[in-house]
Amino acid sequence: MTLSDRVRDLAAEAVPSDPAAAAAAEERHGRLAKPPGSLGRIETLGVRLAASAGRCPPPVPEQPALVIAAGDHGVHAQGVTPWPQDITAVMVEAFCRGGAASNVLADTVGARVSVLNVGVAGDVAAHPLLRGARVRGGTRDLSVEPAMTEDEAARAVLAGAGVVDELLAAGCDLIVTGDMGIANTTPSACLIAALTDAEPGEVTGRGAGIDDDMLAHKRRIVATALQRHGADREPLAVLASLGGLEHAALVGTMLTAAAERIPVVLDGVIADAAAIVATRLNPDVAGHLIAGHRSAEPGASLTLEQLGLEPLLDLDLRLGEGTGALLAVPLVQAAARVLAEMATLEDLGIAAT
Amino acid sequence: MTLSDRVRDLAAEAVPSDPAAAAAAEERHGRLAKPPGSLGRIETLGVRLAASAGRCPPPVPEQPALVIAAGDHGVHAQGVTPWPQDITAVMVEAFCRGGAASNVLADTVGARVSVLNVGVAGDVAAHPLLRGARVRGGTRDLSVEPAMTEDEAARAVLAGAGVVDELLAAGCDLIVTGDMGIANTTPSACLIAALTDAEPGEVTGRGAGIDDDMLAHKRRIVATALQRHGADREPLAVLASLGGLEHAALVGTMLTAAAERIPVVLDGVIADAAAIVATRLNPDVAGHLIAGHRSAEPGASLTLEQLGLEPLLDLDLRLGEGTGALLAVPLVQAAARVLAEMATLEDLGIAAT
Repeated sequence: MTLSDRVRDLAAEAVPSDPAAAAAAEERHGRLAKPPGSLGRIETLGVRLAASAGRCPPPVPEQPALVIAAGDHGVHAQGVTPWPQDITAVMVEAFCRGGAASNVLADTVGARVSVLNVGVAGDVAAHPLLRGARVRGGTRDLSVEPAMTEDEAARAVLAGAGVVDELLAAGCDLIVTGDMGIANTTPSACLIAALTDAEPGEVTGRGAGIDDDMLAHKRRIVATALQRHGADREPLAVLASLGGLEHAALVGTMLTAAAERIPVVLDGVIADAAAIVATRLNPDVAGHLIAGHRSAEPGASLTLEQLGLEPLLDLDLRLGEGTGALLAVPLVQAAARVLAEMATLEDLGIAAT
Repeated sequence: MTLSDRVRDLAAEAVPSDPAAAAAAEERHGRLAKPPGSLGRIETLGVRLAASAGRCPPPVPEQPALVIAAGDHGVHAQGVTPWPQDITAVMVEAFCRGGAASNVLADTVGARVSVLNVGVAGDVAAHPLLRGARVRGGTRDLSVEPAMTEDEAARAVLAGAGVVDELLAAGCDLIVTGDMGIANTTPSACLIAALTDAEPGEVTGRGAGIDDDMLAHKRRIVATALQRHGADREPLAVLASLGGLEHAALVGTMLTAAAERIPVVLDGVIADAAAIVATRLNPDVAGHLIAGHRSAEPGASLTLEQLGLEPLLDLDLRLGEGTGALLAVPLVQAAARVLAEMATLEDLGIAAT
């Protein structure tokens, strides 16, 4: 059995959303001590959590876990970002030590942090929070050759899956995606364009902040890559030719969570790109995904629309690292607690209007 | 000294925002370990917190407190809502016992709950969480006479101020507004129209959920009230003739917090209407206000725009009770913690781009 077959088998295990649990949640919302529908998107989120869990009320996530998948990108050599590649390794060490934005926001919402090195180019010091599963020291340059072999991509997927297995065994009940990889909005744009048939101009954005000239250049690089690898249609082949190792790892986190009925809060465009790969492997994955926020990257909105996901937050974030997803965690907890803990109109002796 | 004079004196104590602290926060954001501006609205919120506190980094709010001000409304007799008036008392008792949406969301974000009865029509059982400061058993019908005397409105303002005094003395460091009062979107629309010169049709919405006929009727009631009391221009006079006792109490919470440099997270249209009264009493109050969410009521967006406030969340909530403001509390904490706890680029040995 090839590694790719193992990924396909894992994808096949995703549990479909449960319409009966969703209906029970909707019915319960109508009986709770509030005007019907007055909690708006918190109610629809609660219905989604019930459908994902297969029961109403859904479990209240008490142990959220951020998984930051990290990798480097051969396409960095094409000058698609002003940031030097070695920032990836520096930030991975920062996530382990604490002090990065994602550490601060994880503390704020009570999430634990795991860092997964699937492909950082530089050396990274060992640390208890760091899982080393380095497939290779960054991808190849996707504008001139496939970024990864399918075998490499599959290894990174399975590394992401393994981290979530460990976290669920330790009691975690909500997965939050994070990413680190200088230049990784470029492969994200490529994956989204390849899998949605969007134009490079529609999906390529300024990443962490680039000027007009660099943006035009980045669009040309994305277009070149799509011309080179655009014939690929099978999701794992697209992931391998155009993606990043951290995208692959995030695909693995989503597949494992979906197999275990655990919701996954997506961060920005890197997670959205991984989500479109994961849902092409098995559409049933989508029912377990929650869009944490609307990334400023244009490909993010397009992808979320295709996935039928409405982002919870829209705060002009463009940092990555899981920051936007972390900020949505209390909303997810609130949605579950409303169904689990609120009194009903009947409890209060109020007749429904 | 009249009670109105005491309110004006309290309003005069609001501390202006500190531009030097705001500038220090902006400068610090540029040195933190992230691309400049990449935390979007979390950064602008941090700047606002620094300006409110008068220092950078601003204190991290660790003890948020929800104040639910409750009152009834004479205009209920005009049939502006399908809900019976006695729901106000039922819900006040529910807030004390727990089980209401605001209790569940307060638990989710670690906020304590205080309930302030400034004017519930029905009897409410004593409870440790309930502050009794009932000015009268609901306002008069604002469509036929002034809702309150100025003296009554001032008493409710001072009751709200007193609760915040107590909470700050107990260590609370973030005030979250909540409200309960069947029919209270009608006085909210009146206050907003009177103080912003908007048309009744622009500011009158469906509240917790009414049909087209009732909405048309509600708009006529708002128009009638504005014709009757529209000559009032002084903020306390407008509050008295067109507001609710809970609006007045929320004005008091904002004035006291602004005098002590404590930020206030506004819930929906009731708080927004109170905020426009408070900022007309002293424009310096505005610098301490944070818009928790965008209420579905049309008057809310119009008011927030006039106050220069951009809501943090937009989740189609229309429940009140403080629910939208509570959900924004983790964002406020995150914004403060980013400034207080993140490493700088220099700490990580990264040169700024």
